[in-house]
Amino acid sequence: MKLMLVGYGNVGKAFRSLIHERKINVEIGGIVTSKGAMFKDSEKFEVEKKIMAIDALEEIKPDIVVDMSVANYKDGEPSYSLYISALRQGIHVITTNKSPLALRFKEIMETAKMHNAKIGFQATVMSGTPSINLYKILPCMKIIKIRGILNGTTNYILTRMSEGSSYNEALKEAQEKGYAEANPELDINGFDSAAKLAILTNVYFQKNISINEVKFEGIKNINRNTIDDAKKTNSKIKLIAYADSKENYVSPIAIDQKDELFNVDYVNNALQIESDIEKITIIGPGAGPINAAYGALSDLILLIKGVL
Amino acid sequence: MKLMLVGYGNVGKAFRSLIHERKINVEIGGIVTSKGAMFKDSEKFEVEKKIMAIDALEEIKPDIVVDMSVANYKDGEPSYSLYISALRQGIHVITTNKSPLALRFKEIMETAKMHNAKIGFQATVMSGTPSINLYKILPCMKIIKIRGILNGTTNYILTRMSEGSSYNEALKEAQEKGYAEANPELDINGFDSAAKLAILTNVYFQKNISINEVKFEGIKNINRNTIDDAKKTNSKIKLIAYADSKENYVSPIAIDQKDELFNVDYVNNALQIESDIEKITIIGPGAGPINAAYGALSDLILLIKGVL
Repeated sequence: MKLMLVGYGNVGKAFRSLIHERKINVEIGGIVTSKGAMFKDSEKFEVEKKIMAIDALEEIKPDIVVDMSVANYKDGEPSYSLYISALRQGIHVITTNKSPLALRFKEIMETAKMHNAKIGFQATVMSGTPSINLYKILPCMKIIKIRGILNGTTNYILTRMSEGSSYNEALKEAQEKGYAEANPELDINGFDSAAKLAILTNVYFQKNISINEVKFEGIKNINRNTIDDAKKTNSKIKLIAYADSKENYVSPIAIDQKDELFNVDYVNNALQIESDIEKITIIGPGAGPINAAYGALSDLILLIKGVL
Repeated sequence: MKLMLVGYGNVGKAFRSLIHERKINVEIGGIVTSKGAMFKDSEKFEVEKKIMAIDALEEIKPDIVVDMSVANYKDGEPSYSLYISALRQGIHVITTNKSPLALRFKEIMETAKMHNAKIGFQATVMSGTPSINLYKILPCMKIIKIRGILNGTTNYILTRMSEGSSYNEALKEAQEKGYAEANPELDINGFDSAAKLAILTNVYFQKNISINEVKFEGIKNINRNTIDDAKKTNSKIKLIAYADSKENYVSPIAIDQKDELFNVDYVNNALQIESDIEKITIIGPGAGPINAAYGALSDLILLIKGVL
């Protein structure tokens, strides 16, 4: 299997390291960034040719494209066109980039299906903690609702604020640890959570909504008083994402001590799935370069094994 | 696909109902209990021939055996011999019965592999909450330790005791709700948790231990005082199962409020997986006929899809 990596920031570098460290039996045929393409596997990235990823497909001829580039919520480009082009050629796509799937889910899924290509996107929601892939091992459930904490940066900030930190200190820490999106505004205002909720809604309820159909509110209005008031009633403010078959939203909510999400702190995220059979909760890191890279790696292994 | 169901208690009945309700495209070729075999699919069980399951294989000629019979921890029989015989004929096995796997894991796995047959055993640990199947979507992790609450009956009793119930009241409730094993002694003394920990250890650490190699202590010595003392320090007593590459045990332990297992109450179970990449926790019901039946159903669907 030959891979073409797209994007070579912290996640891309962590992914490449994992491939080598774990001796995964694949070949990295090239790495492409917004600056151009390199047609070899090297830790140090150097542009060999100034072309875009979509054009590099023909030169690298990969079996799998692994997109770890930055989200563009205007139109999902250039990743969206790259996926469509790759899938039409029967090239599989694995991605950590939420934007194409949060904007044009159905087109991507249908193109993949039509050309018998696979699309792995575990890392778009909760990084390496199974969320998308969890659905694959929960067949034949009738999902009633899903609920979760889907953004690592805001959960980190809320946790540190409840421990006494200021908002700015906490945000700076989250950025230093590599949890925050390139533009932290998208974490803070709830947009990143909403994008993830759109993807989860499409998977768990077989829908086709875009981020633009998710109501969202971030943590901008949460201050020291809100945090302290919650504490007085043994509650915590968490940025909760919720969806059922009728509605969906992202909103800061005070949850009480008995809530299974109460102890989901720092960069941890969580997803609760309530079905006609049972309620399941999964908790794990929701951000971090190694975690996002592992999400993509798990997709890669499952794809090679024919499980994806 | 033709199924042969073995055992027709609460779990067997719930499984048969699920197959029909969800319109799963399989045929139930017969049902076998310790009393004999019925060679048709009917809600009401009637013995048509006094034979054992292993002999019914030849008459029913199933593609898949689904074993939902009661655990026998002496030697795992008659299920163990049934599995070996079925697997040798290339017949897949799905089981909710822990004892053969907790006693002779390696022989069963190797026989399955040699004859290209599959063995699904999600329901043996945490019923329908992914534990065994979760491992399948977490490839290439180096597991450092696992830790969990693996028995629904004892967790239910401990929760109700912390709410003020007596031990006997709580046990009676657990039995009425169908959580307890046929012999609740095996829940109470930690043996059931130990059997599950043996299976998890074999899966997560690629080992081949039997239940007889797991140190275990149950909740027999937990009384009102132990519960109240824990409460005073904002702790709760939980029956914790733990394994790393060197040791394993089941023991009642006081865990504090910040522990992710603190809110795992009543019949809920939990599994924490700590790897070199990250720590993941999954929480969900660990007992109940419908939940165990769903565990087997999920294996069945994954087997049909070629994912198991």
